Amino acid sequence: MVKTKKPEPFKRQEKNMKNTHPAEMNEVKVNDPYLAPRIRQCLETTIPKSVQHCRTDGRINAFKLQWKEGMPDKPHVFWDSDVAKVLEGMAYAVQLTRDPEMEKELNEIVDLVVSAHQKDGYLNTHFTVVEPEKRWACLNSAHELYCAGHLIEAAVAHFQATGRRNFLGAMCRYADYIASIFGRGRGQKRGYPGHEEIELALCKLAEVTGKKKYLDLAKYFVDERGQSPSYFQKENPQWTSRNLENHQALKPVREEKNAVGHAVRAVYLYSGMADIAQATGDKELLRACEAVFDSISQKRMYLTGGIGSERSSEAFENDYNLPDHSSYAESCASIGLVFFASRMFNITGDGKYMDVLERALYNGIPSGISLDGYHYFYKNLLRADHNTHWLFQKTRLEWYDCSCCPTNFCRFLPQIGSYLWSANEDGVKLNIPAASVYEADGRKITVRGDYPYGTEIEVEFGTGAEFTFSMRIPLNCSASFSLNGKKVSPVPEKGYVSFRRTWKKGDLLKVSLEMPVVVFRAHPELTFNAGHLALMRGPLVYALESIDNGGRNLSQLLISASQSFKLSKAKGLPPGTIALKGTAYEELLPENHLYTQGVPKFRKTSFTAIPYALWQNRGESGMTVWVREYFG
Amino acid sequence: MVKTKKPEPFKRQEKNMKNTHPAEMNEVKVNDPYLAPRIRQCLETTIPKSVQHCRTDGRINAFKLQWKEGMPDKPHVFWDSDVAKVLEGMAYAVQLTRDPEMEKELNEIVDLVVSAHQKDGYLNTHFTVVEPEKRWACLNSAHELYCAGHLIEAAVAHFQATGRRNFLGAMCRYADYIASIFGRGRGQKRGYPGHEEIELALCKLAEVTGKKKYLDLAKYFVDERGQSPSYFQKENPQWTSRNLENHQALKPVREEKNAVGHAVRAVYLYSGMADIAQATGDKELLRACEAVFDSISQKRMYLTGGIGSERSSEAFENDYNLPDHSSYAESCASIGLVFFASRMFNITGDGKYMDVLERALYNGIPSGISLDGYHYFYKNLLRADHNTHWLFQKTRLEWYDCSCCPTNFCRFLPQIGSYLWSANEDGVKLNIPAASVYEADGRKITVRGDYPYGTEIEVEFGTGAEFTFSMRIPLNCSASFSLNGKKVSPVPEKGYVSFRRTWKKGDLLKVSLEMPVVVFRAHPELTFNAGHLALMRGPLVYALESIDNGGRNLSQLLISASQSFKLSKAKGLPPGTIALKGTAYEELLPENHLYTQGVPKFRKTSFTAIPYALWQNRGESGMTVWVREYFG
Repeated sequence: MVKTKKPEPFKRQEKNMKNTHPAEMNEVKVNDPYLAPRIRQCLETTIPKSVQHCRTDGRINAFKLQWKEGMPDKPHVFWDSDVAKVLEGMAYAVQLTRDPEMEKELNEIVDLVVSAHQKDGYLNTHFTVVEPEKRWACLNSAHELYCAGHLIEAAVAHFQATGRRNFLGAMCRYADYIASIFGRGRGQKRGYPGHEEIELALCKLAEVTGKKKYLDLAKYFVDERGQSPSYFQKENPQWTSRNLENHQALKPVREEKNAVGHAVRAVYLYSGMADIAQATGDKELLRACEAVFDSISQKRMYLTGGIGSERSSEAFENDYNLPDHSSYAESCASIGLVFFASRMFNITGDGKYMDVLERALYNGIPSGISLDGYHYFYKNLLRADHNTHWLFQKTRLEWYDCSCCPTNFCRFLPQIGSYLWSANEDGVKLNIPAASVYEADGRKITVRGDYPYGTEIEVEFGTGAEFTFSMRIPLNCSASFSLNGKKVSPVPEKGYVSFRRTWKKGDLLKVSLEMPVVVFRAHPELTFNAGHLALMRGPLVYALESIDNGGRNLSQLLISASQSFKLSKAKGLPPGTIALKGTAYEELLPENHLYTQGVPKFRKTSFTAIPYALWQNRGESGMTVWVREYFG
Repeated sequence: MVKTKKPEPFKRQEKNMKNTHPAEMNEVKVNDPYLAPRIRQCLETTIPKSVQHCRTDGRINAFKLQWKEGMPDKPHVFWDSDVAKVLEGMAYAVQLTRDPEMEKELNEIVDLVVSAHQKDGYLNTHFTVVEPEKRWACLNSAHELYCAGHLIEAAVAHFQATGRRNFLGAMCRYADYIASIFGRGRGQKRGYPGHEEIELALCKLAEVTGKKKYLDLAKYFVDERGQSPSYFQKENPQWTSRNLENHQALKPVREEKNAVGHAVRAVYLYSGMADIAQATGDKELLRACEAVFDSISQKRMYLTGGIGSERSSEAFENDYNLPDHSSYAESCASIGLVFFASRMFNITGDGKYMDVLERALYNGIPSGISLDGYHYFYKNLLRADHNTHWLFQKTRLEWYDCSCCPTNFCRFLPQIGSYLWSANEDGVKLNIPAASVYEADGRKITVRGDYPYGTEIEVEFGTGAEFTFSMRIPLNCSASFSLNGKKVSPVPEKGYVSFRRTWKKGDLLKVSLEMPVVVFRAHPELTFNAGHLALMRGPLVYALESIDNGGRNLSQLLISASQSFKLSKAKGLPPGTIALKGTAYEELLPENHLYTQGVPKFRKTSFTAIPYALWQNRGESGMTVWVREYFG
């Protein structure tokens, strides 16, 4: 990272809240067997391939503003956002690797993007060359402010990675222009985004520039949302309350108790709300964030951290409506959930947010990308019957017309290190004990081990300094500790144990995790999981693939909860991957009978489960997370 | 029925097959407590309301051919079929009731329809006034031959009901014109319908006119289908094999072993194939019909006789893919399945076809229409969670833009009597022992009883004559018999018992059915039903509605198979309706836990189930046919 001198920030309300901040991504080097290969592959494959796609299909060229009616590659309303996310990912890659080729290409594309900047401050390819007469005319569905948000995020990342100010400057002028259009002043539009994103982007812009006006604009967008009369219904009188709810605009966001509507939009909005709450000390807004977070984690989230189960509108469903075979659980939504959970943790210090973050980070997010780094699920099923017509996307695809998920991986994966660690003046928090090296503010800490597969973790302190070191007990684990060879028994608080001392170079904290295979059952109102069980070990949700289980339809298999599961080497998956094995019962198939009065018959057999996120990497296969429970 | 002198039929190949024919609908008077009210309501409500809808939304006026660009009520490609089906239903109603008002209105609308007949023989509102340049240009999706088929069926029914020949004559000329366009001759198109229907209609036309040429045209359409190169792919080079399969056109129909593609189209096609097989003695075609029928009944049919589980293309899925909560199971498809099963039974005499017919007739079809006779399900779910967003059509609607299902009820319900009885020269078959009076060919037989609720049935012979009387043992029943007070023990063959004798007036056959509550389990590859059970009594599939069961989400309830179920009076449903009651176990709800390591806890309670077809008649409610099995 180029050490850009940080501008003096507007006064943060740190006193009101126990703020920590996530580590900067270049303060952390990730070395573990599960996340690090994903990050490496993102830099080597995911980002370059995505740049290539954006070039060949015209997304990048769109910024030349040369498109005319009748020409191919008509710029789509969401194209700018795809390019912006790839640029953001490239900027992070440059921060992590200082790769000069990558930096050169980043700057070239940025220069092209900036060249599309209009004199009045506007920057949007579609509404400049395709439908200029519709600028700001269709906020409810035209993704205009959403694209602006992603461009702002990209500009911030570009500035932080390269120190160049051209993109950031253009985006400041764009944000200023947007602030002139929208607001409660005379002649201004009382609009807000159809697809939220710009709120959190403006908070980043405020922080990096030190200009409170961008925070004010974000706050305006948040508070205007859902006010009556509805701006969206003014734009489109056909819109029903269902449409409004799907856009988190049925009521003012501060009054919302449930996570509702399009899941990606929701968690982007909630992340922006959390940013504003943190920056302004707005406790009412924080309460709203806490309520919607609990709604997600207690009633509207898959075991994998997937969210948004309603396919037709990609949205949160009512409580407990989480069909596993038709889960939408968009990759982007789980990524957005990590954004939200990270903010909530860093504001409150409550490990429950990190529990959700870890769940999504280890399961619902990596399931969206193949081990080769360039095939993607848009929807993340928790059950797939390998012989169905009716769920099309059973294999990951290389690109999508609507490619939000691939491009989100470009920018998300490089950030992973920053979620593993949090810090403030008082100390450092190891949120997830994946092997990594943290170094910042004169504090260097090295974590070794094979988490999430291995249970023995070493934390070595590399510098002498007085600070509190805290560590979260990971999902489904308990831990015992020894410090420099002496057993210590810290008491966990909100999921973390803490050690305050003057650390000496070479201090060694050994952490031994108990990480048993844990049997989970679902709330009985989860229609499709009632009577089933699921297996986790540590943060990893396990799944059965039919290719490991005799090619059977997996609804034929039952597993008893009371058995000892065995750990074994997974076949055809990355070295170190642990599979679970155990006893299963196969329900025998009656001949030519769909429906029978006969009593089911079972045969004892065995089963193999692999980490859910790694499914569909060895060819087409049926898969299920939830397995029928055997009571024989 | 006006006794229209039947023309001498082309030579039927009766020797080759044990043909019976369904009773004419006016040879049967249905008096039972389950079907008869549906028929009555159809005549009094379903048909008049549908006529009204067709008037107010322009479907009938379309035949004035006055529509011009810019006017409302643009004739849609499938509108003609809706009017035709309503006319067919009106004609049947006239046959059953001789209602002069109905007959007058029927003739008026028929005259309007006939007035749209073009000089060259063509009759289609859409392709006359909206897209005349596209006549026959888009067989794959434009429903042109489908509409023609329904108009032909309506014309045959109109002729049979009224003796008037104007509609029939117009349709003969239309069919002649179609035969001039399509075929293997020079300059002819080698096309066939995108939506099958005309095949079975042409067989009817051949039978009623005695003209073999219509049968030949039907046979051409059947045999040309699926030939290579594909006509549909010539029309639309984008079409994939999936598209072709969805239209039963991936391979020649004689080679097909599985029921595939759009379910309504499939069973209409198969019905036409069976007609041709019967009329021509084509055994190869009959074998193909048998294969696809077995594919349906053994691998691709819901317990209710619903078919077509793939929502996006309304199609058959692969074997055992029968999701209950997202069943498509279109009402029209079950109606078409009855058409097909009836033909197969009357050709082969095998009761297995009647088993499927009875299943659909008592469950999957009546579930599609409300007890008030004018609200309809398009899709027939087997499970509905009452608090989901994601399955919209949980309540029956009064009409649809695509109103094939409502109009199919208009013409199907009046026909029910004809499925209950079959006959040939040798004798009479009582296929389903619903209370009814059969009178034809000097044979009068009266069936009394409360089937499907009651178990005691009396069959009284009203005329002296020698013939074989056969009776099918209904679904899930066994039967004992006494003839004129003496116990008799006929041996069932292919599901029927037979009595050959010279019947005397007053002969009385008493049938006592054993009709226990039967517990069914699904093939374990039925992912969503594995581990569940379903209850039937006789032909009736039972379902739990949440409004009868404490408002619970029904996935919370479990039922043990080993218990004695109790029969009781159903509340809020028609007099005589029998509900089932028994012991259930309620899985208790953990607080604020979606997923728990705790062991499930149960509380003993009771459950109530009602006949599936009657659900959603007492307000919005969750419903399920399949209930978790309790093994405690």
